[in-house]
Amino acid sequence: MAIARLTEEERAAALAELPLWRLSADGTAIERRLRFPSFAQAFAFMTRVAFEAERADHHPEWSNVYDRVTVVLTTHDAGGLSTRDVEMARFIDGVAG
Amino acid sequence: MAIARLTEEERAAALAELPLWRLSADGTAIERRLRFPSFAQAFAFMTRVAFEAERADHHPEWSNVYDRVTVVLTTHDAGGLSTRDVEMARFIDGVAG
Repeated sequence: MAIARLTEEERAAALAELPLWRLSADGTAIERRLRFPSFAQAFAFMTRVAFEAERADHHPEWSNVYDRVTVVLTTHDAGGLSTRDVEMARFIDGVAG
Repeated sequence: MAIARLTEEERAAALAELPLWRLSADGTAIERRLRFPSFAQAFAFMTRVAFEAERADHHPEWSNVYDRVTVVLTTHDAGGLSTRDVEMARFIDGVAG
Protein backbone atom coordinates (compact mmCIF):
# COMPACT_ATOMS: atom_id res chain seq x y z
CA MET A 1 0.00 0.00 0.00
CA ALA A 2 1.40 3.38 -0.97
CA ILE A 3 2.03 5.80 1.87
CA ALA A 4 0.63 9.30 1.46
CA ARG A 5 3.10 12.10 1.02
CA LEU A 6 2.50 15.12 3.24
CA THR A 7 0.91 18.10 1.53
CA GLU A 8 2.85 21.36 1.61
CA GLU A 9 0.63 22.58 4.42
CA GLU A 10 1.10 19.40 6.45
CA ARG A 11 4.85 19.56 5.88
CA ALA A 12 5.02 23.16 7.08
CA ALA A 13 3.01 22.28 10.18
CA ALA A 14 5.25 19.27 10.91
CA LEU A 15 8.44 21.30 10.52
CA ALA A 16 7.08 24.01 12.81
CA GLU A 17 6.94 21.47 15.64
CA LEU A 18 10.33 19.95 14.77
CA PRO A 19 12.68 22.95 15.04
CA LEU A 20 15.81 20.79 15.31
CA TRP A 21 15.20 19.28 11.87
CA ARG A 22 16.19 20.89 8.58
CA LEU A 23 14.32 20.31 5.34
CA SER A 24 16.47 19.09 2.44
CA ALA A 25 16.89 21.40 -0.55
CA ASP A 26 14.48 19.33 -2.65
CA GLY A 27 11.93 19.12 0.16
CA THR A 28 11.84 15.30 0.22
CA ALA A 29 13.74 14.67 3.47
CA ILE A 30 14.52 16.10 6.90
CA GLU A 31 17.88 15.99 8.65
CA ARG A 32 19.08 16.39 12.20
CA ARG A 33 22.70 16.44 13.38
CA LEU A 34 23.32 15.29 16.94
CA ARG A 35 26.36 15.31 19.19
CA PHE A 36 26.85 13.21 22.30
CA PRO A 37 29.34 13.20 25.20
CA SER A 38 31.05 10.06 23.84
CA PHE A 39 31.04 7.45 21.08
CA ALA A 40 29.39 4.98 23.47
CA GLN A 41 26.52 7.39 24.06
CA ALA A 42 26.19 8.15 20.35
CA PHE A 43 25.97 4.43 19.60
CA ALA A 44 23.58 3.79 22.47
CA PHE A 45 21.30 6.44 20.91
CA MET A 46 21.60 4.69 17.54
CA THR A 47 20.70 1.37 19.13
CA ARG A 48 17.50 2.75 20.64
CA VAL A 49 16.55 4.26 17.29
CA ALA A 50 17.44 1.02 15.47
CA PHE A 51 14.96 -0.98 17.55
CA GLU A 52 12.24 1.63 17.01
CA ALA A 53 13.02 1.63 13.28
CA GLU A 54 12.47 -2.14 13.19
CA ARG A 55 9.27 -1.88 15.19
CA ALA A 56 7.90 0.84 12.92
CA ASP A 57 9.42 -0.69 9.78
CA HIS A 58 10.76 2.75 8.95
CA HIS A 59 14.52 3.12 8.84
CA PRO A 60 16.72 6.20 8.93
CA GLU A 61 19.62 6.94 6.62
CA TRP A 62 22.35 7.85 9.03
CA SER A 63 26.04 8.26 9.60
CA ASN A 64 28.25 8.33 12.67
CA VAL A 65 31.69 9.82 13.25
CA TYR A 66 32.80 9.31 16.85
CA ASP A 67 30.41 11.42 18.99
CA ARG A 68 28.38 12.78 16.07
CA VAL A 69 25.35 11.26 14.37
CA THR A 70 23.55 12.63 11.32
CA VAL A 71 20.05 11.30 10.69
CA VAL A 72 18.11 11.72 7.44
CA LEU A 73 14.44 10.74 7.28
CA THR A 74 12.41 10.26 4.13
CA THR A 75 9.73 7.85 2.91
CA HIS A 76 10.78 6.35 -0.40
CA ASP A 77 7.36 4.76 -0.93
CA ALA A 78 5.80 8.22 -0.71
CA GLY A 79 8.42 10.01 -2.79
CA GLY A 80 8.99 12.45 0.05
CA LEU A 81 7.99 13.09 3.64
CA SER A 82 5.16 11.17 5.31
CA THR A 83 3.73 10.94 8.80
CA ARG A 84 6.21 8.09 9.39
CA ASP A 85 9.08 10.57 9.19
CA VAL A 86 7.35 12.96 11.57
CA GLU A 87 6.73 10.15 14.06
CA MET A 88 10.34 8.95 13.82
CA ALA A 89 11.65 12.50 14.21
CA ARG A 90 9.56 12.90 17.37
CA PHE A 91 10.88 9.60 18.71
CA ILE A 92 14.47 10.67 18.00
CA ASP A 93 13.95 14.04 19.70
CA GLY A 94 12.56 12.21 22.71
CA VAL A 95 15.52 9.83 22.92
CA ALA A 96 18.12 12.57 22.31
CA GLY A 97 16.60 14.61 25.13
CA MET B 1 51.69 9.91 21.51
CA ALA B 2 51.55 10.27 17.74
CA ILE B 3 50.70 7.14 15.80
CA ALA B 4 53.00 6.27 12.92
CA ARG B 5 51.53 6.55 9.44
CA LEU B 6 52.16 3.53 7.22
CA THR B 7 54.89 3.98 4.63
CA GLU B 8 53.90 3.53 0.99
CA GLU B 9 55.36 0.02 1.04
CA GLU B 10 53.52 -0.91 4.21
CA ARG B 11 50.29 0.49 2.81
CA ALA B 12 50.65 -1.51 -0.40
CA ALA B 13 51.31 -4.68 1.59
CA ALA B 14 48.29 -4.04 3.83
CA LEU B 15 45.97 -3.41 0.88
CA ALA B 16 47.18 -6.59 -0.82
CA GLU B 17 45.81 -8.60 2.10
CA LEU B 18 42.58 -6.55 2.30
CA PRO B 19 41.10 -7.02 -1.19
CA LEU B 20 37.61 -5.93 -0.10
CA TRP B 21 38.87 -2.49 0.87
CA ARG B 22 39.37 0.41 -1.51
CA LEU B 23 41.95 3.14 -0.97
CA SER B 24 40.58 6.69 -1.02
CA ALA B 25 41.69 9.01 -3.84
CA ASP B 26 44.04 10.89 -1.52
CA GLY B 27 45.46 7.70 -0.02
CA THR B 28 44.59 8.60 3.57
CA ALA B 29 41.67 6.21 4.16
CA ILE B 30 40.24 2.83 3.20
CA GLU B 31 36.59 2.05 2.56
CA ARG B 32 34.48 -1.08 2.43
CA ARG B 33 30.82 -1.32 1.47
CA LEU B 34 28.85 -4.18 2.97
CA ARG B 35 25.37 -5.51 2.41
CA PHE B 36 23.43 -7.77 4.78
CA PRO B 37 20.24 -9.85 4.52
CA SER B 38 18.32 -7.34 6.68
CA PHE B 39 18.53 -4.10 8.64
CA ALA B 40 18.69 -6.11 11.86
CA GLN B 41 21.74 -7.99 10.61
CA ALA B 42 23.37 -4.80 9.35
CA PHE B 43 22.89 -3.18 12.75
CA ALA B 44 24.05 -6.30 14.60
CA PHE B 45 27.27 -6.07 12.56
CA MET B 46 27.62 -2.40 13.51
CA THR B 47 27.12 -3.24 17.16
CA ARG B 48 29.93 -5.81 17.15
CA VAL B 49 32.22 -3.31 15.44
CA ALA B 50 31.17 -0.55 17.87
CA PHE B 51 32.30 -2.60 20.87
CA GLU B 52 35.62 -3.43 19.20
CA ALA B 53 36.06 0.25 18.30
CA GLU B 54 35.66 1.18 21.96
CA ARG B 55 38.05 -1.56 23.08
CA ALA B 56 40.68 -0.48 20.56
CA ASP B 57 39.88 3.23 20.98
CA HIS B 58 39.76 3.45 17.20
CA HIS B 59 36.43 4.39 15.65
CA PRO B 60 35.15 4.02 12.10
CA GLU B 61 33.39 6.71 10.08
CA TRP B 62 30.37 4.90 8.82
CA SER B 63 26.90 5.19 7.38
CA ASN B 64 23.92 2.86 7.17
CA VAL B 65 20.97 2.77 4.81
CA TYR B 66 18.71 -0.19 5.58
CA ASP B 67 20.74 -3.33 4.74
CA ARG B 68 23.85 -1.46 3.59
CA VAL B 69 26.79 -0.24 5.65
CA THR B 70 29.73 1.82 4.38
CA VAL B 71 32.81 1.88 6.61
CA VAL B 72 35.71 4.33 6.25
CA LEU B 73 38.86 3.85 8.29
CA THR B 74 41.59 6.41 8.80
CA THR B 75 43.83 7.53 11.65
CA HIS B 76 43.52 11.27 12.14
CA ASP B 77 46.44 11.34 14.61
CA ALA B 78 48.66 9.83 11.91
CA GLY B 79 47.33 11.95 9.05
CA GLY B 80 46.53 8.80 7.10
CA LEU B 81 46.49 5.04 7.46
CA SER B 82 48.11 3.29 10.42
CA THR B 83 48.28 -0.26 11.70
CA ARG B 84 45.13 0.54 13.70
CA ASP B 85 43.16 0.78 10.47
CA VAL B 86 44.59 -2.48 9.19
CA GLU B 87 43.70 -4.25 12.45
CA MET B 88 40.16 -2.81 12.40
CA ALA B 89 39.71 -3.78 8.74
CA ARG B 90 40.75 -7.35 9.58
CA PHE B 91 38.31 -7.42 12.48
CA ILE B 92 35.50 -6.16 10.25
CA ASP B 93 36.28 -8.73 7.56
CA GLY B 94 36.16 -11.43 10.22
CA VAL B 95 32.79 -10.27 11.56
CA ALA B 96 31.28 -9.77 8.10
CA GLY B 97 32.27 -13.30 7.14
